[in-house]
Amino acid sequence: MPRVCTSIVKNVGPFTDVPAPDVATNAKHMLWMLDEYETITGGRYPGFITGKPVGMGGSLGRTEATGYGCIYVLREALKRLGIDIKNTTASFQGFGNVSRYAVQLYQKLGGTVIAVSRSTFTLRKKDGLDAKLLDEIVDANGEIDKEKALAHGCEILPREAWLEQDVDILVPAAIENQITAENVNKISEKVKVIVEGANGPTTPDADAVIEERGIFMLPDFLANAGGVTCSYFEQIQSNMNFYWDKDEVLAKLDDKMTSAFNAVYELSVSRKLFMRDAAYVIAINRVAEAVKRRGWV
Amino acid sequence: MPRVCTSIVKNVGPFTDVPAPDVATNAKHMLWMLDEYETITGGRYPGFITGKPVGMGGSLGRTEATGYGCIYVLREALKRLGIDIKNTTASFQGFGNVSRYAVQLYQKLGGTVIAVSRSTFTLRKKDGLDAKLLDEIVDANGEIDKEKALAHGCEILPREAWLEQDVDILVPAAIENQITAENVNKISEKVKVIVEGANGPTTPDADAVIEERGIFMLPDFLANAGGVTCSYFEQIQSNMNFYWDKDEVLAKLDDKMTSAFNAVYELSVSRKLFMRDAAYVIAINRVAEAVKRRGWV
Amino acid sequence: MPRVCTSIVKNVGPFTDVPAPDVATNAKHMLWMLDEYETITGGRYPGFITGKPVGMGGSLGRTEATGYGCIYVLREALKRLGIDIKNTTASFQGFGNVSRYAVQLYQKLGGTVIAVSRSTFTLRKKDGLDAKLLDEIVDANGEIDKEKALAHGCEILPREAWLEQDVDILVPAAIENQITAENVNKISEKVKVIVEGANGPTTPDADAVIEERGIFMLPDFLANAGGVTCSYFEQIQSNMNFYWDKDEVLAKLDDKMTSAFNAVYELSVSRKLFMRDAAYVIAINRVAEAVKRRGWV
Amino acid sequence: MPRVCTSIVKNVGPFTDVPAPDVATNAKHMLWMLDEYETITGGRYPGFITGKPVGMGGSLGRTEATGYGCIYVLREALKRLGIDIKNTTASFQGFGNVSRYAVQLYQKLGGTVIAVSRSTFTLRKKDGLDAKLLDEIVDANGEIDKEKALAHGCEILPREAWLEQDVDILVPAAIENQITAENVNKISEKVKVIVEGANGPTTPDADAVIEERGIFMLPDFLANAGGVTCSYFEQIQSNMNFYWDKDEVLAKLDDKMTSAFNAVYELSVSRKLFMRDAAYVIAINRVAEAVKRRGWV
Amino acid sequence: MPRVCTSIVKNVGPFTDVPAPDVATNAKHMLWMLDEYETITGGRYPGFITGKPVGMGGSLGRTEATGYGCIYVLREALKRLGIDIKNTTASFQGFGNVSRYAVQLYQKLGGTVIAVSRSTFTLRKKDGLDAKLLDEIVDANGEIDKEKALAHGCEILPREAWLEQDVDILVPAAIENQITAENVNKISEKVKVIVEGANGPTTPDADAVIEERGIFMLPDFLANAGGVTCSYFEQIQSNMNFYWDKDEVLAKLDDKMTSAFNAVYELSVSRKLFMRDAAYVIAINRVAEAVKRRGWV
Amino acid sequence: MPRVCTSIVKNVGPFTDVPAPDVATNAKHMLWMLDEYETITGGRYPGFITGKPVGMGGSLGRTEATGYGCIYVLREALKRLGIDIKNTTASFQGFGNVSRYAVQLYQKLGGTVIAVSRSTFTLRKKDGLDAKLLDEIVDANGEIDKEKALAHGCEILPREAWLEQDVDILVPAAIENQITAENVNKISEKVKVIVEGANGPTTPDADAVIEERGIFMLPDFLANAGGVTCSYFEQIQSNMNFYWDKDEVLAKLDDKMTSAFNAVYELSVSRKLFMRDAAYVIAINRVAEAVKRRGWV
Repeated sequence: MPRVCTSIVKNVGPFTDVPAPDVATNAKHMLWMLDEYETITGGRYPGFITGKPVGMGGSLGRTEATGYGCIYVLREALKRLGIDIKNTTASFQGFGNVSRYAVQLYQKLGGTVIAVSRSTFTLRKKDGLDAKLLDEIVDANGEIDKEKALAHGCEILPREAWLEQDVDILVPAAIENQITAENVNKISEKVKVIVEGANGPTTPDADAVIEERGIFMLPDFLANAGGVTCSYFEQIQSNMNFYWDKDEVLAKLDDKMTSAFNAVYELSVSRKLFMRDAAYVIAINRVAEAVKRRGWV
Repeated sequence: MPRVCTSIVKNVGPFTDVPAPDVATNAKHMLWMLDEYETITGGRYPGFITGKPVGMGGSLGRTEATGYGCIYVLREALKRLGIDIKNTTASFQGFGNVSRYAVQLYQKLGGTVIAVSRSTFTLRKKDGLDAKLLDEIVDANGEIDKEKALAHGCEILPREAWLEQDVDILVPAAIENQITAENVNKISEKVKVIVEGANGPTTPDADAVIEERGIFMLPDFLANAGGVTCSYFEQIQSNMNFYWDKDEVLAKLDDKMTSAFNAVYELSVSRKLFMRDAAYVIAINRVAEAVKRRGWV
Repeated sequence: MPRVCTSIVKNVGPFTDVPAPDVATNAKHMLWMLDEYETITGGRYPGFITGKPVGMGGSLGRTEATGYGCIYVLREALKRLGIDIKNTTASFQGFGNVSRYAVQLYQKLGGTVIAVSRSTFTLRKKDGLDAKLLDEIVDANGEIDKEKALAHGCEILPREAWLEQDVDILVPAAIENQITAENVNKISEKVKVIVEGANGPTTPDADAVIEERGIFMLPDFLANAGGVTCSYFEQIQSNMNFYWDKDEVLAKLDDKMTSAFNAVYELSVSRKLFMRDAAYVIAINRVAEAVKRRGWV
Repeated sequence: MPRVCTSIVKNVGPFTDVPAPDVATNAKHMLWMLDEYETITGGRYPGFITGKPVGMGGSLGRTEATGYGCIYVLREALKRLGIDIKNTTASFQGFGNVSRYAVQLYQKLGGTVIAVSRSTFTLRKKDGLDAKLLDEIVDANGEIDKEKALAHGCEILPREAWLEQDVDILVPAAIENQITAENVNKISEKVKVIVEGANGPTTPDADAVIEERGIFMLPDFLANAGGVTCSYFEQIQSNMNFYWDKDEVLAKLDDKMTSAFNAVYELSVSRKLFMRDAAYVIAINRVAEAVKRRGWV
Repeated sequence: MPRVCTSIVKNVGPFTDVPAPDVATNAKHMLWMLDEYETITGGRYPGFITGKPVGMGGSLGRTEATGYGCIYVLREALKRLGIDIKNTTASFQGFGNVSRYAVQLYQKLGGTVIAVSRSTFTLRKKDGLDAKLLDEIVDANGEIDKEKALAHGCEILPREAWLEQDVDILVPAAIENQITAENVNKISEKVKVIVEGANGPTTPDADAVIEERGIFMLPDFLANAGGVTCSYFEQIQSNMNFYWDKDEVLAKLDDKMTSAFNAVYELSVSRKLFMRDAAYVIAINRVAEAVKRRGWV
Repeated sequence: MPRVCTSIVKNVGPFTDVPAPDVATNAKHMLWMLDEYETITGGRYPGFITGKPVGMGGSLGRTEATGYGCIYVLREALKRLGIDIKNTTASFQGFGNVSRYAVQLYQKLGGTVIAVSRSTFTLRKKDGLDAKLLDEIVDANGEIDKEKALAHGCEILPREAWLEQDVDILVPAAIENQITAENVNKISEKVKVIVEGANGPTTPDADAVIEERGIFMLPDFLANAGGVTCSYFEQIQSNMNFYWDKDEVLAKLDDKMTSAFNAVYELSVSRKLFMRDAAYVIAINRVAEAVKRRGWV
């Protein structure tokens, strides 16, 4: 038995704190921990940990969860802004686990993907990059095959070009600190919504400019919450020992994302707050409320 | 930590006996107990207690549960009696947590509310008291604003007038011992169904008269079981850590109420019992059956 | 308290190993064990055991589960074979807990039951044995009333005649070792599918002949898994303390059976395996996969 | 398994509250409860209960404990009063579990027993009732054989005569309310010490007279604590699974009794309190101290 | 972590069943099991297992326990037989863990060791084999160096010679079935006591002869109980986390052995039983008594 | 309930890790933690923590333990050095919890205390400072009343004078880093033994000089282990729920200290190590041995 969690075993559990993979750990390590946890507790407790593979306690839909989640909240935002998603265009930064599925769902809902970027260049096709085409020219690691791309009529632009496109929607879904004071002004006048698929893609000073310009911001901890929500679904399914099919998982995810969006949006309107601030206010209020009602203060 | 449940902590639990608020306790105290229980057990066990606020482990639909439950069984009773609810009129005693929602659903299903009583008088409008109108003239504590009521064309009658109306349905939903040997004979010839929304609103001697007169009785522990059923739903949702939306809660409540009504009704027919007696027979039989099958006798 | 499970109580549980009735035990003994288990653990843990009666922690649909399960997989097999179930005929061995419900569903889907056997004879009606007729002439123990059968126009044939009918489908659903090297060649040229409703009805040498003749085999641990799957559903419902209605149980059962059939069928096609072998490969692979991923090898 | 303690099993235990026999229960019932407790907990926990028979988790010395305890504190009291026990005489009320062993030890230490009473008469022998003689003329229930007694030179006096003897020490060791306002003045001028072997043998008004007369009082909850102390020893031995021989038990009992006497005596001297009051002050102080130091006030 | 006890971990424990080394296991394996048990339970429970090395939860005196135990009961037997141990002679079969220490203590109490056997021969010295001499000529495995033995004036006799010596005491302390119907008559007329240091050294037919000849038998489960008694002491010390010094262990062992001997001896006298039978009667009675008093029958 | 240990409660316990007071905590906080621990676990577990007051789970003899422990090992060292303690003189640094009791026992064993220091000066009396005299002139905080001291014939010397006395024994029992490279050479030629009553009173470079000069060093973690040993005794007594009297505690302490001294001394002789190094070797070996035998390496 690998000794992975002996010393924390009393402090975690299916009804307590539930670990999930983070930097340098993956499904394999989760199963090792589960195995050790079950040996020590002498029961079957797959709900003690999340990030397990499908068929061994994992949840269907996990792969799509973060990307789809971004588009669920985008769809709601567009509704509120009175924009038909079918008439929109978008540019995505990154083509990893988030963007790949965000692109898929965005296109399915009728949107047109103009650009997708990789670490060294941006791929653009003005009449739309088809999701299937992208699957063909991008490998499992998200690496884009330039040759194939050109052959299919794509343009190869510089790395930062994704940001400068005349699109309605920007989806920074790669890494942190990508929209900064330096480049924020390169954002086209046309852009109406930014969806933060990555964690912290916008620096605070760039954020201030975006707010001032009146661009609708879907902040990261709202927009990319699909993954952690799916971990929560995994815990529930594992604890029940009953697993939902993929459509059910995604429908439930849509419900949760939509309802979170609505709460934030309504506060943002009623209190005249930038979406990011409204989201913080809600999060902090919930903790404050719990602390107060439980009698801690 | 308030020391509310230290001495019972070993004797309750999410899979054992589950407390709920009763006289002089409310959601606040439930959260205090939950907090203490979780501190002592070192886990997250919201299913250990019910009556928690929504968002902190409580169930949606709890507010409506008792009132709606009354109308679900009324609806079933009318079906069996071959009466179209749309052609019925009703008089309610009380306008608190039960009546407010019973009135709402009853009107939604097509019924006409003729009278609603308060502790000192009865409000009557022969062409129907609209639920929205009632919400307007009744405050949060269920107090009716007489002035406004008169201005809206309502009559103000004496306290007991609710009982004497020429309606199809009486819904005593205030306190106990309201239909007694003294006033039972004031019940109109027209009344076909009594729905006991309160606990024990009918005294045993009045009950005998009602049975003799052939009025269809929906006894309290069947009619007002919506609240405790919702507590049961709350325990399930808390234990799953997954919460249903309000429509789902109310649909499940309808299923349970309808199925309970059917069991009682069918026994009442097959064994020729008054509904109240049929309900007792079923309850007692279930305990007897469990005792026998578990091998205790 | 009957002392049924004192010495195993630490080694079973709602989240560990879950007993179910087997030879010489039934629902009564399961309740005895549950009662003892709950006394010892001091909680309510109906999910610790399955096979409980409905209303005391048991699952609706359990009665039908095995028989319906046989027909769910038969339906899928016929789809794959391009045969319309409405045009098929079938012969069943046995009329106990499995066949009774298999016959019921098979007829409901449009199939025609030609023959049903009992321990000493076979009942045949060439234009179809109606399920309701069968219910009438068969008693609770599955004993067939010959007189009545004849009166309803049935033929009485020898015991083994069920095997020799010119039907599309054979359903051995009685006991083990019924299709042997001795009688396998009496199976009609017309037979296209065998559904093993019983455990081990086919001997290995007869199995080889069946494979060679190209008859489509639905092996026992796939075809009759409906009962154990329903035990699994019972555990889930008991642990949730929330029970599904019969339609929901059967729909979920259909999902599970269909999805199991598909997995086996697809492997059988892709690896060119006999269905029974494909089923074994899948079962063994799952264990091997778990062992490997948990880090045991 | 007799169901004796199912419902309290979570609230007792070898390290929590420990039951012991009281009115209408004896060693047999303690073993029944132990058996049930061990079945439920799945371990060996003889320390969960006391009053068990020797050889099955009980303590040696339990039989003698209360009677010997009375004499241990008497011996200490006489030391403090400067009286040589060898020169003393005593009269005992009762000859049950307490007196029998008190008489035995008192005589062993050199004292002379003048009288012993039973429910209907008092036995007196002015030159001393030998413990062995008493064993001979008293049966297992403590009944005295009058004939034999007379034959051995004893006098038969009225029931209350035990109280009126010219002895140094009175040991009321039968039942409550034996020394009352009515008879307290019959106590001889010679009496220097009263040892309350029974619970509450002295009424409050008689007590006041005794205090005024300056008789040294060994109050019941000090004098007859030998039994409960031995229960405590039994818990310790059972929890260790190691049993002391009788001499060790009695030596430890002597230590505890002596040390309790000293604490009470010293407070009685320093604060000029009657012994009974001093004992109360100590008991209450200990609780108060614990409450305060644990941070409850 | 070696996976030694995962599957039994719920069924053993410091207050339940306690393992000890047996064939093919030793202290090393006990520590492995302890380590695993403590990892799983998350506490320090050295009392869960016995046979641990000194300094790691083991008991001092364990090495000597079985051999010394034999001599403690021999000493008591000789007292009862009115024989001064100083005037006795003895012959031992084997020189392993039992005999080595039995010889040591027997000589210390004044006895004279005439012969000691090994698997292939017997060593004899008519004026006494000194324990220190034996230590010198026997190695750690109990192998005797013949050369050295001869040089020190010992005789080398055949294997079975140990049985035929003119001694007062025979101590078969090697393996089972050594005194048989074939050789029992070679036992000298002089022999008064047999001490079964091994398990089952006497066959039942030989036993009958010994009983008839009136030789005093110390049966194995009385005579060699020193080892298992020391395991019991180890459990107690480990559970207390407090360890006795060797003298204390051996004194407590002497107490237990002596008291066991006395119980058996007294029953053997009062009921006129052979010692072996008396020992069985006591053992069986204790179980019967427990069963009865716990209310199982 | 003060929330002192909620978050560690699962990781400590009477059979796991046991806390004790350290910097800024005392008996009061230990009782608070005990109270909380017992509330959470629902049992009586005084052995979960040490440092409790006597009468509330604490051990007698704790006050004296460290000081007496220093003198127990000094006594053994002197025996080995062939020095009669009655002929020795000693100088102590500090007069707090360690020195006060070390002085007491040292004098009782016949030694003569020449000097005792305080933070600002040293008190010397060449013909011996009597322990009772010291108690008189030193207050509860260890502050010395200079006036009184002079009146009793003591000399007042500078702070460091304690180090420079012509005594046989130096006992640095105040704070760390008191014997340094700067002052080590002021140690008199006469000094034969240094007893480190404080933690780390000697710097490594001073230590090298002491080793070279051949002064016998009793290193701190051997010499002042009396306190922590008494914590261990407290755990045992609390877990047993049986408390030893002070003499028994101190006798057991003497055993443990003496036996620890012997182990270190013998290794120091056999491996020719400085006492401090021998003590380290033993400590490290024990851990290494445990790691190895438990199968971790």
